[in-house]
Amino acid sequence: MVNSKLPDAIPALVDRAVQGDRRALSRLISRVEEGGSAAWSALSLIYPRTGQAQIIGVTGAPGTGKSTLVSEIAKYTRRHHPEITVGIVAVDPTSPFSGGAVLGDRIRMRDLSGDAGVFIRSMATRGSLGGLARATTDVVKILDAAGFQLVLIETVGAGQSEIDIARTADTVIVVEAPGLGDEVQAIKAGILEIADILVVNKADRDGVQSTVNALHTMIDLGKSSSTILHHGRLMTVQPTSPREERWRPPIVKTIASESKGLEELMEAIAHHRAYLGEHPDGQQRGRMRAALELETILREALFNRLLQTTSMAQLELVVDRIAAREIDPYSAAEQLLA
Amino acid sequence: MVNSKLPDAIPALVDRAVQGDRRALSRLISRVEEGGSAAWSALSLIYPRTGQAQIIGVTGAPGTGKSTLVSEIAKYTRRHHPEITVGIVAVDPTSPFSGGAVLGDRIRMRDLSGDAGVFIRSMATRGSLGGLARATTDVVKILDAAGFQLVLIETVGAGQSEIDIARTADTVIVVEAPGLGDEVQAIKAGILEIADILVVNKADRDGVQSTVNALHTMIDLGKSSSTILHHGRLMTVQPTSPREERWRPPIVKTIASESKGLEELMEAIAHHRAYLGEHPDGQQRGRMRAALELETILREALFNRLLQTTSMAQLELVVDRIAAREIDPYSAAEQLLA
Repeated sequence: MVNSKLPDAIPALVDRAVQGDRRALSRLISRVEEGGSAAWSALSLIYPRTGQAQIIGVTGAPGTGKSTLVSEIAKYTRRHHPEITVGIVAVDPTSPFSGGAVLGDRIRMRDLSGDAGVFIRSMATRGSLGGLARATTDVVKILDAAGFQLVLIETVGAGQSEIDIARTADTVIVVEAPGLGDEVQAIKAGILEIADILVVNKADRDGVQSTVNALHTMIDLGKSSSTILHHGRLMTVQPTSPREERWRPPIVKTIASESKGLEELMEAIAHHRAYLGEHPDGQQRGRMRAALELETILREALFNRLLQTTSMAQLELVVDRIAAREIDPYSAAEQLLA
Repeated sequence: MVNSKLPDAIPALVDRAVQGDRRALSRLISRVEEGGSAAWSALSLIYPRTGQAQIIGVTGAPGTGKSTLVSEIAKYTRRHHPEITVGIVAVDPTSPFSGGAVLGDRIRMRDLSGDAGVFIRSMATRGSLGGLARATTDVVKILDAAGFQLVLIETVGAGQSEIDIARTADTVIVVEAPGLGDEVQAIKAGILEIADILVVNKADRDGVQSTVNALHTMIDLGKSSSTILHHGRLMTVQPTSPREERWRPPIVKTIASESKGLEELMEAIAHHRAYLGEHPDGQQRGRMRAALELETILREALFNRLLQTTSMAQLELVVDRIAAREIDPYSAAEQLLA
């Protein structure tokens, strides 16, 4: 039944995890989240097994009901394709998957946790800058290697690192809801450009049509610029498909809490997947994702290397001198890096 | 009157900016935002002039009215202390200061932009991971050096990097509002621990008291753990004041759109400032801020250095190999770093 003892070594944990041992999988994820050499060796080992899963990012402002939508996508998939196992990664402190939301939501999620074909992992959002993005892509890769054919990433749609996480998915769903107030609506400006599919959830509320209309207008405005663009430093990837053939994000209305609109949403996801397979933009997205992954790993590795070669006493001294304004942090950094 | 030609060199721009030339100030900020050696040399030059401003971070979920609150704090200060000039840095795509919000909000902000004693700067949130945090602290420093005695930073209270930005302030105000829905309320769990002052804005709405009560409960729960803690990697700073003397975040009710509650809020800010001056926690916070600043600069410098020593062709090749799954990104990073 359950293995009473788990190995400590990464290769053994990887073996067990890819064979379907869920406890080994959880342990492996925890080790990888910590970063450092454990993450390094685990990911090298599993990499050849990755690239099979369909990865969907679901993002949106708080209050749009994206957790319920994630849960409904998982349930729909399991109901119609019981052979497909689903991994859920929640990078959102307000998600019921992370224990952040209200009781009612968490009870609704419970249907899922009873299903052995669904694996839910919530990521801590307290890590250092960059560490979270690196850890999340790693966890998605582990789930991919462990045989989950569908991996859903839920992130709160505000904050640069959270947006960067969502955009590592094959398909990015941006969730909106009517009546959240203008300020909440305005948040979409920042995330609309990464949307492959727009969902207007809570579509039984007043103001659905005006939300849909507003989104159409924003899509039309956005079409004039490129839709796949990496704003990071490592590499900028432009769409290569001819403009008239480029993907236009469809707008799907759902009432996730009543499981309504799921069929249309799943169809839109399938369409987008087919598009990526058939158009040069699909390959461009793969390159963009590779560049993003490499960048986060490089950033973290460089910083960790510095920490390993610098003594804590030396760092404390430098920090004290900056705090006392005896030296500016730039000059201090220059000295540390010399 | 207005200088028709601006110097290009950083030292000349710094000279003009600290002498009160607003166009030079804007230009200097733009140069520093780009990062690299311009930021490096500008910040080294201005650092001796910094440390004078009072820096207040205002953060909260979308819809809480934090932009209006920021605007009201600025107006209140200018009305009661005309000798104090105010800098506003908006790191929030939904902020009317960034042009992100609805027209009504932006009109309300216009009172401020007519005041020569107020300088407003909105930060792009599209930069790379870490770059935004570095740029924001730099801009705050420039405003400090340019003589603004009060600097307000507005960030959306979701997303790790945005939270890290807010915590570089002397005083962090976390804004809540009643009736935003449970999911929005839950967001506070992540940002409550960095709050020095809690504001329940829109206090004319139903449910104010239950919001206030919930916050009191959360503060009581939070008191058992440390309240000043840096979760980053460079350094962890614990509060050193005896527990019974430690700052307990006051809860202030405001109706920012009607300028109500401002007096109490300004008093709370003054109290917190006095606390920091009198308690060891104040020095600890200075150290934490120095550590955060140093960390973001180091992270960015390390990555930029790598980009400078690696050819774009080499990077493209590596990215292509990762995308084709010929190599995993960890091994690729290892090769690039070797």
